[in-house]
Parts: sequence; structure tokens; C-alpha cells
Amino acid sequence: MRPSGRAPDVMRPVSITVGFARHAEGSALIKIGGTEVLCTASVETKVPPFLRGQGKGWVTAEYGMLPRATHKRGPREAAKGRQNGRTQEIQRLIGRALRASVDLETLGEIMITLDCDVLNADGGTRCASITGAWVALAVALRTLVDKRVIRKMPVLTQVAAISCGLTADGCVLDLDYDEDSNADSDVNFVLAADGGIVEIQGTAEKAPFSEIAFLDMMHLARSGTGILFAAQTEALNAAQSGAPAP
Amino acid sequence: MRPSGRAPDVMRPVSITVGFARHAEGSALIKIGGTEVLCTASVETKVPPFLRGQGKGWVTAEYGMLPRATHKRGPREAAKGRQNGRTQEIQRLIGRALRASVDLETLGEIMITLDCDVLNADGGTRCASITGAWVALAVALRTLVDKRVIRKMPVLTQVAAISCGLTADGCVLDLDYDEDSNADSDVNFVLAADGGIVEIQGTAEKAPFSEIAFLDMMHLARSGTGILFAAQTEALNAAQSGAPAP
Amino acid sequence: MRPSGRAPDVMRPVSITVGFARHAEGSALIKIGGTEVLCTASVETKVPPFLRGQGKGWVTAEYGMLPRATHKRGPREAAKGRQNGRTQEIQRLIGRALRASVDLETLGEIMITLDCDVLNADGGTRCASITGAWVALAVALRTLVDKRVIRKMPVLTQVAAISCGLTADGCVLDLDYDEDSNADSDVNFVLAADGGIVEIQGTAEKAPFSEIAFLDMMHLARSGTGILFAAQTEALNAAQSGAPAP
Amino acid sequence: MRPSGRAPDVMRPVSITVGFARHAEGSALIKIGGTEVLCTASVETKVPPFLRGQGKGWVTAEYGMLPRATHKRGPREAAKGRQNGRTQEIQRLIGRALRASVDLETLGEIMITLDCDVLNADGGTRCASITGAWVALAVALRTLVDKRVIRKMPVLTQVAAISCGLTADGCVLDLDYDEDSNADSDVNFVLAADGGIVEIQGTAEKAPFSEIAFLDMMHLARSGTGILFAAQTEALNAAQSGAPAP
Amino acid sequence: MRPSGRAPDVMRPVSITVGFARHAEGSALIKIGGTEVLCTASVETKVPPFLRGQGKGWVTAEYGMLPRATHKRGPREAAKGRQNGRTQEIQRLIGRALRASVDLETLGEIMITLDCDVLNADGGTRCASITGAWVALAVALRTLVDKRVIRKMPVLTQVAAISCGLTADGCVLDLDYDEDSNADSDVNFVLAADGGIVEIQGTAEKAPFSEIAFLDMMHLARSGTGILFAAQTEALNAAQSGAPAP
Amino acid sequence: MRPSGRAPDVMRPVSITVGFARHAEGSALIKIGGTEVLCTASVETKVPPFLRGQGKGWVTAEYGMLPRATHKRGPREAAKGRQNGRTQEIQRLIGRALRASVDLETLGEIMITLDCDVLNADGGTRCASITGAWVALAVALRTLVDKRVIRKMPVLTQVAAISCGLTADGCVLDLDYDEDSNADSDVNFVLAADGGIVEIQGTAEKAPFSEIAFLDMMHLARSGTGILFAAQTEALNAAQSGAPAP
Repeated sequence: MRPSGRAPDVMRPVSITVGFARHAEGSALIKIGGTEVLCTASVETKVPPFLRGQGKGWVTAEYGMLPRATHKRGPREAAKGRQNGRTQEIQRLIGRALRASVDLETLGEIMITLDCDVLNADGGTRCASITGAWVALAVALRTLVDKRVIRKMPVLTQVAAISCGLTADGCVLDLDYDEDSNADSDVNFVLAADGGIVEIQGTAEKAPFSEIAFLDMMHLARSGTGILFAAQTEALNAAQSGAPAP
Repeated sequence: MRPSGRAPDVMRPVSITVGFARHAEGSALIKIGGTEVLCTASVETKVPPFLRGQGKGWVTAEYGMLPRATHKRGPREAAKGRQNGRTQEIQRLIGRALRASVDLETLGEIMITLDCDVLNADGGTRCASITGAWVALAVALRTLVDKRVIRKMPVLTQVAAISCGLTADGCVLDLDYDEDSNADSDVNFVLAADGGIVEIQGTAEKAPFSEIAFLDMMHLARSGTGILFAAQTEALNAAQSGAPAP
Repeated sequence: MRPSGRAPDVMRPVSITVGFARHAEGSALIKIGGTEVLCTASVETKVPPFLRGQGKGWVTAEYGMLPRATHKRGPREAAKGRQNGRTQEIQRLIGRALRASVDLETLGEIMITLDCDVLNADGGTRCASITGAWVALAVALRTLVDKRVIRKMPVLTQVAAISCGLTADGCVLDLDYDEDSNADSDVNFVLAADGGIVEIQGTAEKAPFSEIAFLDMMHLARSGTGILFAAQTEALNAAQSGAPAP
Repeated sequence: MRPSGRAPDVMRPVSITVGFARHAEGSALIKIGGTEVLCTASVETKVPPFLRGQGKGWVTAEYGMLPRATHKRGPREAAKGRQNGRTQEIQRLIGRALRASVDLETLGEIMITLDCDVLNADGGTRCASITGAWVALAVALRTLVDKRVIRKMPVLTQVAAISCGLTADGCVLDLDYDEDSNADSDVNFVLAADGGIVEIQGTAEKAPFSEIAFLDMMHLARSGTGILFAAQTEALNAAQSGAPAP
Repeated sequence: MRPSGRAPDVMRPVSITVGFARHAEGSALIKIGGTEVLCTASVETKVPPFLRGQGKGWVTAEYGMLPRATHKRGPREAAKGRQNGRTQEIQRLIGRALRASVDLETLGEIMITLDCDVLNADGGTRCASITGAWVALAVALRTLVDKRVIRKMPVLTQVAAISCGLTADGCVLDLDYDEDSNADSDVNFVLAADGGIVEIQGTAEKAPFSEIAFLDMMHLARSGTGILFAAQTEALNAAQSGAPAP
Repeated sequence: MRPSGRAPDVMRPVSITVGFARHAEGSALIKIGGTEVLCTASVETKVPPFLRGQGKGWVTAEYGMLPRATHKRGPREAAKGRQNGRTQEIQRLIGRALRASVDLETLGEIMITLDCDVLNADGGTRCASITGAWVALAVALRTLVDKRVIRKMPVLTQVAAISCGLTADGCVLDLDYDEDSNADSDVNFVLAADGGIVEIQGTAEKAPFSEIAFLDMMHLARSGTGILFAAQTEALNAAQSGAPAP
């Protein structure tokens, strides 16, 4: 039995609300159980120096955690004067995943920055960030089309992310903080709605794990991302129809 | 006529919700018009080096703004590697104001850090931070008494803050972003419920202003903080009775 | 009786000497009792990016304290790698106060940086900095007119600053370090020679203070700045006539 | 045909030399084709604060690249004042991988820092770092036993790492810089000699990739790490017998 | 003819005043021509970690330049967040020179920090700093003996420094800024009153220089430091007799 | 007898190998006894801002030490976020010495950065860096001529550096780490092949030293650099003939 009482293949409740941030071109507040992340998409009509003049766009991400999003207050990175290695690793992952989801050629010389700020943390914040940021990105792209900043909606592969772990209870889906702290190994899967793999990060925390366990976790991840894809779609539809997301 | 259509002495709608942050000993989400700040109080049972062994407590504050809380995305201070002067000025103000509100001797060797993070900005974020942080602090102190970490509730002077400004429309209460950007001068008042002055920061943005204008603004501030004191009390009562704040 | 033996409304001796810094376009060494600040005005014929092409000038300030200006040696900020919050708060205050004193439109696309470096500290360094920097600024503007860099002297409102405090001896003028460390509250007033308010920063260090005490302190400040305005004028006259200031 | 003329499942030549660094408790210079990394293991008899008093050891890693290890000189991170995100991501990966390989309980309160510095770069530097650092770690542990700093050799799972990629030539083993820059996706595998998975980092650079491609790459990685395990063993044997590695 | 009209072996006027800094255990304001440096000695009764428990003292130095000590305003190092290489090179030189002058064993576990801050710069600031800091150090040691913090005056070798240069006018003594900017080479000599060499830093700015030129410069330096030793002694005597220095 | 058994005027074995770094325009791996430094020359076709449009080139240097080049692991400067004073002092010395060796006018608007990274340290790393960097610079200049980036080889004065010291064994040549740590004084000489002095840095570590000792050390240095000049020439010849250096 998992600490939360969930069966191995059961996710925590998911909700995604579009529009929490009043000024951003796109935003989504995503809650997965006790984890809550505010994702915003900010548009600039210029690209980083290495891309200038190539007619291509860029998508990047920054990640942060409010000091008291966690059980114990963590030092504020702005006050310490540097982002720690974990933060940098996570924001690089979010950026790569979202960049892989959008056709940057069609986007044109536009940069979209996805800020993912964790308001409450209970495990799985990097996966929730990717899933929520994808929604914020979709809203921002739609806004750009509506405002005729870009002529045509770029192809946008639907992408979501979920963690799986090998615990004393076997392979389980969607680790919360308690499970994450004690898992033998955990794997973060970023998957596309068409079944493709966008990113895999798997780590043996205690001892190496087997290929079979890995494949079990990938199976669970496919089922979990199915639920996330539905939640993303529902949030986008609700936003478009003017109704609040459930 | 003010840009928002408000009369000179009318505040924007205020709401304060206790408990948004799941892990903090005390938290309050305060909304004043389009400004929204998450305030958390974090307790540690040790004080800074300069206070050790004196039996006194300490209250301090940190302030941050999510990169896209504003019209235009601002650079993330953690990524830049330093907090800018405005941030430092504001967090020092919040810390002084809250420190003046609580009897640090009775608190004992405990440090409470108030984190004020702006989720949406539309003017008045430093004042909203003080008003919300006071509620978070009150909840945290109550928690400490309930858990018997401290034996006795320290005296806590009720404190709230509001900005006033001298604009083309004369002296007005509770500037929003539009007014703040164009005001001739503005004054932030931190006042106690018993009428005492905790902090005053007044600045002539364009030309020196008169003592009469200053006294007019103080008068408006007294009326505005009256509304804030009521909202603070209501939020604390709602939290204690288990009901959600309105 | 105050620790220094002064009556409540008596300032410490003031002296301002123009020209201590050999290379600066304007400079003033101001002494107020045991506090001594070297203020220099440096002129550049370009403005910060946000002002370019608008035909307006800019005035900004930086503040520093020599490591052994104080009773106990403080760490050198350059060696620590960051300016602390107090430094930033003070230099922002000096900049705002001086910016409010000069007509930036007439100045044209010129930036003047006021460096205020404390050589000896005995309380009131931020106020002495503003009072001295105003003299350095006036000298620099005159130099610019003399060298025909600008065609016309911009309007320059005379500005000076002084601290007042509420102590065990009641409201007093011009706190020295001993008084400042023990005051119940203190207020820094930046006033214009025509009576206008440029900036007010008041802080309750121990308990909230009353509006009456505040008004008493403003009354003292008006009398104190009168003496400072005279010292500024005398220093400028002495410099112009080639004679050393007294 | 691959740019280097290698068949898809062919690695570049590998050589590992023990003892390049004269002062380190363990060191290995690893060359894989044109990539060359100096790995050192440094022993300290104290552990980080979070582990003190628990009787457990710690293994951590730092990674660096000499400024001109690459085609174009990169800025020196020490001069810029911060390690970039890529560096932090890589050194966290090396640390996790090596930590998973050694029994930290048997090690006792000892910290081993693995420094991996790239002297020449031609793709695959993070994998070469892990493979070389494992040798340096093994030498250091043997030294600790020889010098009786620890009584018993901790269990040390043999670990090596290799990159695979999906390119225009299909799935290929051991990407060099040319291939790495153009691959559709690449996966870094850290595997144990007994077949277990220690870490997987897979990234779709252009478009999501299929589970079948992923499994193909894992198959190639198993074959590649086989060669690396042999090279590690040979280097350790050569070092022990006093003969130079081939 | 030198730009200043001085003969090759003529120094600029020198004056040293003890006691400018009110709070420091020792201080000296040294002027050499247009160069003016405030040197303070600050005493702490603890030594750096690497010396603890050895019964020996430590002397160290920090150097700074006020932003407008120079012709053109330089950026404030505290604002930039780092001391530049020149500053570090100079403060290391001052520290080494002064450390070599005092018997650290007799001093005991005491640390003296010499802060040298340039108020006006016209060449030769590092040499003036050493010469002035030696006076501040001597005053501080005397103070420690007077206050019975140490029982016995440590042996203090008298040390002073002067620059020489090879210019279009041949070898010259005591370069001012104009000469320093154009010299073919320059050498800073730190010499002891008994003729010993404490430190030599010679640099060919344009082309290598000959051993003969070097020896000529050393000869000039011996004559120049003779004048500095007399000025140091006079300043110390004046301070002791209570009379102001000339 | 010296700790190493060498006579006072005997250097350690020297070897210089051209071409260790695969990508650099010029590189040299220099070994002097147990000290080993990798020197690379990187060419950019642009100069720093202060030189733009003057038709002159620039040569600069950066220095680093691998964390475990030393007996005890030192903290990685990139991780600490700043280069320490010793590093800055050394890299400034290397840059000045090499700049003095080359005719920057003939070079034209080209910048050459010399990176000197210490792989193994046993005393004399700054001198070895200069001697090796000169070879890397010579190779890079030759490459530029061969590739017709510059039309004509700039005059390049041959430059090498060696340390001497005054120890219990009298004046000795080429200090190793043991001697360097215990020397009474040491002097680094950077000399040109034609006998000219490029740079002298002499320091009394314990007590001032005499002019006679200084001249003895300069004599030793002339003999030592003779050996280094031969080794530099041999390495360049070997590289040009395609044969490996001895």
C-alpha cells in the first residue's frame, strides 16, 4: 500500500486553470495533488544573439520555488546570488522539452520564455511544470495568432510529463514527496500525445535497476500522461469558451 | 476623475485568505484590486548571531516579484545573481514594520521570516505585502502558542499599510499602477490600529509637495487602513472558525 | 540632557568645503560634528538607455562607507562582492532627492553621478550626503555652464536634509550615533529652501509614534535645514570668490 | 556511412591511464577518440554537514572544461564568476552515478570529490568523465585500504557510461562532436557491469523518438559499455602491476 | 625636462598627518604631490583560521580607490560586485610589505588590517599606500602597548616605497600620472631604512630594459625613500608630542 | 644541500611539447620537474573595446590551477564564483610579459588569449606558464602567417621566466614547492634572450634581503633562462620538422 493509499497506477487529482497571471500572454496554474505551479508564457519579438537573422524562433524556460513552498523554508536564490544546480538542471529540462514541441521555423523571430514558479511543493514539480507550461505556451501561441503577430499557428506537439518510481511497493505512478524521498529509483518521462519520447531522465537512487522495471515504469507513464493530455485539452477548451476550468 | 473611476478616498476591493501555502506556519494571500501577494511566515527556533543568548526573538522579511507579475516580463533576480535596490529597500521596510508590531522579548529566541511574493502586480505591492504579512505573522504566532512552542502570545500591535498620492486629481487613496506611474508625489503609510505611526515613506517624484498635501494624505491613509484592519480581522476570524474568507 | 550636552533644537557644527576632489567637476567635503562625507559630482555626456533620445538628463547617486569610518571596522563591500541593503536604500534616497531638485529637461542629455563616501561616521551620514551632494551638484552645473557644455543653468531647487528623533529627551534635532542607536523613532527630512517636502522617511524603532511627535520633528527639521541652507550658500560663495570656506 | 567512417555499433579507440595527477589519491586520464578527460579523486576525512555523525561517506563530483578544449575558445567559468547550467547538470550527473556505485555505509565518514576536467573535447565528455572517474575512485579506495584509513574495501559496482544517438544513419554508438551536433536525439546511458541501469538521460533534439529506437540505443549501449568495462579493468590491473596502461 | 619641471632625482612634496580617521587604532593621511591616500589600521584580537593557536599575529591590507579619485570616474567596485585584478594585486603587495616589517611572533594572536583608500590619484598610489600604512601600523602598535593589549612593542622595521621609471628623460624618481602613462618601464621599490629590499616590482611597458637602467633606478629609489623615512618619523613624532604634522 | 639534492645553480629537467591541445592555434605542454602546465593560444579577429580602430593587436592571459594539481585539493574557482587574488596577480603578470614580447602594431587588430592551466604543481608555475605560453604564442603567430591571416610575422622577442630564492642553502635557482615554502625571499625574473629585463617580482618573505643577494639571483636567472631559451627553440623546431619534441 502506498503512503497515500493510492493503487500503483493511480495519479493524484489534476486541475489546470488558464489565465491566473493577469499580464502574461499565456498562463496556467496547475495542481497535481499538493503540488501547485504557476506557469506563464512571455513573448518578446527578438531572439537570442545566436539565432538572429535566421528567421527562427526560440523557447526557453526558467524555474523557481517560493522559499516556503516546501516543508522547511529554503533560502531564496535571489538572496543567495545564484541558482543552485537542481534549479538549473530543471529549467534546462523544461526548455528542451517545450522547444521540441513547437515548430520554431513557423514561429519566426519570436522568443517565448516559460516561467514555472512552484507555489506549493509535494513532489513532481518538474513534471507539473512541463505539463502546465505546455498549456501556457499553447495559449500564448493562440494569442499571437489572434493578434496577428504571427500569420499561422505553428505545429505544436502536445507534450506532458510524469514521474514514476520503483519503491518498496513496486513500480508506481506519480510519486508524491514521501515516495520520492524513499524511492529506490525514479524516472521522469516527457511524452508526446502521439506516443513519442521527448525526454527521459532516470536515476538509480540506491542501486541499479533492471530494464524490466524501466519498461514497467514507461508503461505506467503512458497511462498517466493520457490523463494529463485530457486535462490540458479540457483547460484550453474551457479558456476558449470563456468558462472557468473545473 | 481617477483613471479607475474611483473617488479620491475610495480603495480598491480587498480580500485576504489565510492558509494558501500548505507548509508555512502562517500564510495569507492578499488581493487589493489587481495586486496579489502571497505572504508566508516561517518559524525557526534560532536567531541571527547578533541576538544569540539574549532571550529575544527576531522578525525579518524577504520580498520578490514573479518575473511576469508585471506588464512586461522582468528579469528573474535569482538568474541575474543579485536582488536589485528596489527589492532590498522594500524588504527592509517590511521587516522594520513587522518588527515594530511584535513584542520580541516575549517571543523568545525564535526567528520568523516573512516571505512576500507578488503573483500579480498593479501598484501598491509593498503596502499589500505589509498588510498581508501581518496576518501571516498573527497566524504563525497563534500556531506557536497552540503547539506550546511559546507559552504566551506576544503583544502584537495590528499594523497595515496603504499608499496615497498627489495626482492631477488631487490627493487620492490607494494608487494603482497607472496612477503610481504618473503621480507628482506618493507617500506610503504604515499605521497601527491605535493610530500610531509605524513608518512613513514620502517621495516627491516631480516637485516638492506641501505640508498641507502631506497631512491630507495622512488623513486618507487613516481611513484606508481602517478598511484594511477590518479585512485582517475578518480573515483571522474566518481562519479560526474554519470557514473560508469571503 | 542629550548625551552631547546639546539642547533639543541645537545642531552640531557644520562646515562645507568646495573642491577637495581634484578631478571632479564638482565636489564638497561636508562635516557635521564627527560625521564627514566627501561628495563628488561626475559628468558624462550620455544618459542611461531608458532615457536615450528624449533630450532629458539624469542624476543618480552612489554611497559608500570607508571600512574604518565606524567604531568597529566593517567589511569592505567591494571585497564581499555586494552592496548591502542599507547602502542601496541610502543611495536610492540620495538619487531621488537630488533628481527632484534639478530641471532635467533643461539639463539635456547629460548624466551626473553623485558619489558620497563617508570618511568618518557619527550618525546622520545619509542626510549629510544629500546636503553635501547638493553643493557638489551646484558646482558641477556651474562648471558646465562656464565651459559652455550647457547653454543655460537649469533651475536648481536648494535641498538639504536632517534627521530628527524621538528620544528619552523628547524630540531632538540632528541625532549623533549615540542618540541614533537608542532613539524610539527617527525621521529623515529632505526639505527644499522654499518649504516644500522632497522626501520623508520615518521609522518607529521601538513603538509607533504619534502624529504630534511627527509634527514636532518636522518643525525642528525646518529650523535645522535653515542652518544647512546658509552653510551651502556660504560654501558656494566662498568657492566662487576663490576664498576657502570657513 | 557515419562522418568518421565507423559502422553504427563501433566505438572510438579507448585508453585509460592511471596516475597522471601526481598528488591525487586516485587519478585516471581517459581518452575516447579525440576526447580527453583528466579525472582525479580527492579524499577528505570529513563529510558535508547534512551527513555528520551518521557514520556514512559521501561521493561528489565537479566538472570543468579548459577554455580551449573546444573548437572555439569558451569563456573561463572562474572569470565569469559562475558555472553555467550545462556544467552543473553534468557534474550532478557524475556525482549521482558514482554515488550509486559505492557502498557509502562501509566507506564511513569520508568524502571523495571527483574532479573531471576536459583537456580536449570531441563529444561524449560527460560519459568519458563517468567512466574515468570510476577508475580514479577505485584507485583511491584501494589507496585508503592500503593506508589503513578504512579497514575494508567498500562494495564498488563497476559503472561506465556511453552516449548513443539517432542520426540520419540510424541508431549509432558513441557520438563524436559532429554527430552530436546533428543528431535527432541522443541518450546517455550509465550502466553497471551486471546489467543494471544507473542513469538514463534521453533527449529529443528535433522530434520525439520511438520506444523502438530507444531500445535499439540501449542495446548498442550495452555493447559499448562492455568495451569500457574491459578498459577500466585493464587500466586498474596495469596500475597495480606497476606497468603502464597500453 | 620632466612634464612637471622636476629634475630626474626630485620627489614631489610629501606630507603625512596622523589621526585623520577618528575611530581607527592608527591612521595616516599621506599626500605625495596630487596623490592622497587615507590609511587606517584596525585591530582585532583574533587571527585568520590558518594561524589559530600558533601564538602569532597577522597583518593584511585592503586597497580601494574612490570612484572619482581619477581624471575619469571609474565604476565603484562594490557596485560591480568584484575587485578588479589591479586592486587585488596592489592590496596583496601592501599586505606582504607590511607583514615583512613587523615581528608577528611578538605581536601575538592579533590581526591588524590596513585599509588604504585613495581620495585623489596622481600616480604612485600603491607606493604612497605602503608608506602611509606603515605609519598607521606604527601608531596602532603604540596604542596597543599603551592600552596594555600587548606587553611589548614588536620589532618594526621602517619601510617605505617609491616608484622609478625609465622615460624619454632617462631614469626618474617618483612618477606622476602623466609620466607613469608614458614610461617605457617602471619599477616599484619597497625598501627598509637599513637598506634591505622588501619588495621589487619592475615591468617593461614597451621594451625590455637593461640591468644598468635597473640599478640606476634602485639608486634613485634609495634617495627617495630617505625623504619618506624622514617624513614618517616626523609625523610620528608630531603625533606623539600632540602637535599637528606640518 | 638542497632538499632535491640539486646544486644551487642546477635547474630541474625541462621538456616542452607543442600541439597537446587539438583545437588551439598554438599550444605547448611544459614540464619543469614535477610542475606541468598546458598553455594554449587562442586567436580572435577582434580586439577589446579600448583598442578598436587603432590597427593594433592585443595579447592577454588567463591562469588556472586544476583543483587537485596540488598536495591538498583546492576549491574550484568557478564553483566559488571568483578568481582569487593570487590567480589574478599571476595572469596579469603573464599577460604583461607576453605583451612586451610581441610587436602589436604589426600584428594588427587581432587578439590572442593565452590560457595557462596547471595540471600538476610543484613550485614555479607562474614562470613555467610564461615560458610555455611564449612557445604557444610563437606557434599561433606562425599559423596566422601560414594561413595568411597576417601578412608578415611580427617581431617576437624570445622571453622566458625562472624563479630564484634565498634559502638556508644560499641563493638557488628554480625553486620547487618545498624550497618555495621555506625561502627567506624569492624573485621571479622574466628575461629576454638578448639580456633585457621584462619583469622582476621580488619578495622578502621573512626579512629584507640585500642588493648583493638580489644580484646573485639575477646572475642565476640569466643562466637558467639560457636553458629555457634552448628548450623553447628545440620544441619549435621539432614541431616544424614534424618530429615530436624530446
